[in-house]
Amino acid sequence: MKLVTPCPTKIEINEVAPRDGLQIEARFVPTEEKIRWIDALSTTGLRRIEATSFTSPKAIPNLRDASDVVTSIQRREGVDITVLVPNVKGTERALACQVDEINLVMSASNSHGLANLRMTPEQSLEQFTAILEVCQNSEATQDRGVFINASLSTTFGCPFEGKVPESRVLELVEKLIGLGIQGVTLCDTTGMANPAQVKRLCEAVLKRWPETPFTLHFHNTRGMGLANALAAWQAGISRFDSSLGGLGGCPFAPGATGNVCTEDLVHMFESMGVDTGVDLDALLEIAATLPDLIGHDVPGQVVKAGKSTRRYTPPVR
Amino acid sequence: MKLVTPCPTKIEINEVAPRDGLQIEARFVPTEEKIRWIDALSTTGLRRIEATSFTSPKAIPNLRDASDVVTSIQRREGVDITVLVPNVKGTERALACQVDEINLVMSASNSHGLANLRMTPEQSLEQFTAILEVCQNSEATQDRGVFINASLSTTFGCPFEGKVPESRVLELVEKLIGLGIQGVTLCDTTGMANPAQVKRLCEAVLKRWPETPFTLHFHNTRGMGLANALAAWQAGISRFDSSLGGLGGCPFAPGATGNVCTEDLVHMFESMGVDTGVDLDALLEIAATLPDLIGHDVPGQVVKAGKSTRRYTPPVR
Repeated sequence: MKLVTPCPTKIEINEVAPRDGLQIEARFVPTEEKIRWIDALSTTGLRRIEATSFTSPKAIPNLRDASDVVTSIQRREGVDITVLVPNVKGTERALACQVDEINLVMSASNSHGLANLRMTPEQSLEQFTAILEVCQNSEATQDRGVFINASLSTTFGCPFEGKVPESRVLELVEKLIGLGIQGVTLCDTTGMANPAQVKRLCEAVLKRWPETPFTLHFHNTRGMGLANALAAWQAGISRFDSSLGGLGGCPFAPGATGNVCTEDLVHMFESMGVDTGVDLDALLEIAATLPDLIGHDVPGQVVKAGKSTRRYTPPVR
Repeated sequence: MKLVTPCPTKIEINEVAPRDGLQIEARFVPTEEKIRWIDALSTTGLRRIEATSFTSPKAIPNLRDASDVVTSIQRREGVDITVLVPNVKGTERALACQVDEINLVMSASNSHGLANLRMTPEQSLEQFTAILEVCQNSEATQDRGVFINASLSTTFGCPFEGKVPESRVLELVEKLIGLGIQGVTLCDTTGMANPAQVKRLCEAVLKRWPETPFTLHFHNTRGMGLANALAAWQAGISRFDSSLGGLGGCPFAPGATGNVCTEDLVHMFESMGVDTGVDLDALLEIAATLPDLIGHDVPGQVVKAGKSTRRYTPPVR
């Protein structure tokens, strides 16, 4: 049994901006700009990049170039390329592009599942069974050992239903692992989580499934993004989703700000002496180009304020 | 000896927006609007309000109405009115207004002290001795028992010098307590603190001076405001400075956002089941009036996103 050590000395970051960030942007980022951007990101020490989503181009027109992006980006040793797949067809397209990981998504609550995916959690689980079969029978997976992750939305609360019982979350995690899902991402989709709740749930899943890689996915909707990440890390979590510049959001929660910001998360953990593997200066340089890439300001704070080691010249008196 | 219990079940908030927030605003908020605002704030369950600063009107013109404000606001049982005083003259003016508490301010670093107050830490300590003498000889203090607090700026780092050694901070705290200062506020003036550093220093001061009320004052400059508050609370801290809407900043750190936001702090702790004593709904109503009061948008997030218990109507399919 793997020993669960609270407060890991190393963490790894899954950069989700190219998928979770771009999908709700007003304008399409040209394919070659996406590729250049992801290629820059993959040199910074990020462990994993969620590069795109193999969704219907009608559903998410911003990511209609999924295959082009994945087949054109530079693949680097130690940087896994993961993609979101919503169904069997998307899985087949993704596997054909030699991805390292696929990320399935379902909701922990009925109404969010129906609103976002037109599926209840149980219907999602059924579909996952079909997707897993495709993966098992695919030559791509057999050759390369594609990792299969599932993201569980509304784990910490549903914007339509409110609280999602922890027992329901644990039941769904158990079903996911039972199906053969290899990693589970617990998502605070609309920023409803608080640090006490995060600590409780993270301790519960790590205790029950010490072999399963759990990733935590936070939004900074109510300012608690980094506090929740801190609480998860204190419980022993070492894998985080985050989004450059804090891009992202949720179409069902107007006014909600985006995902927890990668450079702010890296800055906090590095300041604390936790090894993120990321070259923060290189990451900040890329973050500074975001307003040009997407055409508007972004919520990330360290890129504006500078790192906490920044020095000012004292005023002359 | 008072027992230091980590993770207090109750915390108390010192609302600093009327002083720390307004002092750097571009425009003067009319006296009667300040009074109405503070009167509203004092009904919400905040334990303490830093109502103004008895500084030279030339230095901080926005707070030139300090005496009028303090003598005109309603005084309510259980809500202490504290004011910043920079020197003996300010102390005399403040005591004449029957304040409950005075807050002295000094820096832990030489260059910030010289830039902000034209005094080294040692010069500040000398001045505090003179201020304490005035307090001891004042009829106002003898009748009413005015509490004397000192805020230690740049405790977690100086924007000009960088790191401030923990040993230097502890030395200055010891000197403050030795002088007769009753409470000490540890200030992260330009948002340089990280949760690991906060935990260490809070544990150190609570262990060494278990009888002294310590308050923590954070800025959200690099997004870590709530994470730092969480770390302080986990170390046993139960008193926090915060600023409605996240007003505030630092004139020497351009681009830096403001103080940790009161309503976001209250929202986090109440979500965790920690009693802040504050009526969050009432506080959010007042926070929503801030853009009108000061003429611009503010950084607070919960007022925009709604509390985490907010429900949305599912979209019709």
